[in-house]
Amino acid sequence: MQKTRLDTARIRAARRVIDPIFLDTPLYRCEALEPDLGCMVSIKLETANPVRSFKARGTELVASLLADNGSRAAVCASAGNLGQALAWSGRGRGLDVTVVASRFATAAKLDRIRALDARLELVDGDHELARERAAAIAQHDGIRLVEDSLDIETCEGAATIGLELVGTVPSFDTVLIALGGGALATGVGHVVKAMAPEVEVICIQPLGAPAMTHSWRRRRVVTTDSTNTIADGVAGRRPIPAVLDDLLLVADDAVLVQEASIITGMRMLLEHAGLVVEPSAALGVAAILEDRDRFAGRHVVTIVCGSNVDVAAYHRWVGAAPLHRS
Amino acid sequence: MQKTRLDTARIRAARRVIDPIFLDTPLYRCEALEPDLGCMVSIKLETANPVRSFKARGTELVASLLADNGSRAAVCASAGNLGQALAWSGRGRGLDVTVVASRFATAAKLDRIRALDARLELVDGDHELARERAAAIAQHDGIRLVEDSLDIETCEGAATIGLELVGTVPSFDTVLIALGGGALATGVGHVVKAMAPEVEVICIQPLGAPAMTHSWRRRRVVTTDSTNTIADGVAGRRPIPAVLDDLLLVADDAVLVQEASIITGMRMLLEHAGLVVEPSAALGVAAILEDRDRFAGRHVVTIVCGSNVDVAAYHRWVGAAPLHRS
Repeated sequence: MQKTRLDTARIRAARRVIDPIFLDTPLYRCEALEPDLGCMVSIKLETANPVRSFKARGTELVASLLADNGSRAAVCASAGNLGQALAWSGRGRGLDVTVVASRFATAAKLDRIRALDARLELVDGDHELARERAAAIAQHDGIRLVEDSLDIETCEGAATIGLELVGTVPSFDTVLIALGGGALATGVGHVVKAMAPEVEVICIQPLGAPAMTHSWRRRRVVTTDSTNTIADGVAGRRPIPAVLDDLLLVADDAVLVQEASIITGMRMLLEHAGLVVEPSAALGVAAILEDRDRFAGRHVVTIVCGSNVDVAAYHRWVGAAPLHRS
Repeated sequence: MQKTRLDTARIRAARRVIDPIFLDTPLYRCEALEPDLGCMVSIKLETANPVRSFKARGTELVASLLADNGSRAAVCASAGNLGQALAWSGRGRGLDVTVVASRFATAAKLDRIRALDARLELVDGDHELARERAAAIAQHDGIRLVEDSLDIETCEGAATIGLELVGTVPSFDTVLIALGGGALATGVGHVVKAMAPEVEVICIQPLGAPAMTHSWRRRRVVTTDSTNTIADGVAGRRPIPAVLDDLLLVADDAVLVQEASIITGMRMLLEHAGLVVEPSAALGVAAILEDRDRFAGRHVVTIVCGSNVDVAAYHRWVGAAPLHRS
């Protein structure tokens, strides 16, 4: 493998910095999903922690370094999960955290950011506008701008999931990773390709937010004018060049899935695994649903990366009707 | 503490026998629950494993001992979770497992028992009739009858949860434990009272299935003629004398809660923790809801012991309406 920006030794060292409450998360086979999906399915569950997503693996690194350097404040743009995680990690280390988010972001995520004592600023636009505003705040206040996927700590924090995957017996054939800004995909992908290169790394994005997938396919940054997906956690429009470069080195494929498949995936995870997940966390199951032949007979791990949903929206999505068997 | 039937050294040794997939489960503070509950709340999550309940900690011990002794078969009565766990543990060790259950048991639990290759026999009555039938099968076939809560492995398996609780920092004040047959309560209670006796052990049962709580209060076995609760996992009518004796040594209190509180507890765990739980797993939250003053300002751990629900029933219980704030 050509060198990514990530470093495996640093990722191993990160395990000693991250609060253990975010490490060594459940990894287990879920046979009840298998008849409908036609392959062996294991779940890596990143939701059973105080912020209900994997993002704190990265923010623990960021906040720890900032505190070690005597910094007192940080700002980030977030669709909600990074902000919640940075607020949690910062609070424990005496950092003033500001989070900039779209006013259209998931209300439950915004509520939790406020509850964790962070300053929340809403912008009247999408996530890309929030990124611009966060950068302006950082420049004006002279504080650290935490940029998801660009900042190496966000990638290497996520990469600790990879360490927990490659050490397992029995091993698996494929890992399915939600693709947004790319921290999770390049992080896990780096470790998998460095330590278990035979394992296939497949990234999944919604058809309604395809910028990074289009960029991966064309091997150059492709932006879009808008996004249209319920998977708020991965709805970016402007891929970061350095992150794309890493993704090109570690991803075996990047696929796009329909909204209907994401919803069916959420329903299946509820019905067969008893898991409430946010749309981004159902992308892996959606990818299997859309291409069963590709995965038939294989052992697939899907990373369930977050569970922060507005309950009313969740009920609308999964409904009360029994799941239609395929 | 007077001696229970359980042995702390044997419980420590049990950790080496139980498949690690069932051990070291998530334990984390859930601040989003705290405004409504008025105390610090941590969750011990026993649902993120292949059988979605804590029961496999015990069946791993049972099945391992049976396999070591050259046994080929076992039978148990179950409301669903023990049967699923014994089926899982037995399948991996070449045991023929028979599960006897009420035909009124949760359909999803019965489906999973069948899917795990166990023989399932339904009786036209409640769990106590299933226990009688399982005993008859064991006697007729000359195979091991696995009796939940009476068989020491089921208690000592559950007790490994206690080991994971007492070692934590910061420590907590109270542990809330669903009370059914008593394996979970006597198991966790034994370890807590042996290793952290200052921690309060509170057992919770539904008002509609109060036999063990009544027995604990009167210090003698009290049976009931029927049960009436959605908490199928704890709906016994005939407490086992030896288990009651242990419970009298380790429980600081046993309380009864209303069905409405169980349902509110399930809703709160969905809305504020993103967790789908079966009714038995909401008993702890229900107990706090019914007596906030008792727990005010304390740090309480509640064991979320299972998530096997029929999704249609779950939707009926938690509904789609937003949670009413108290």
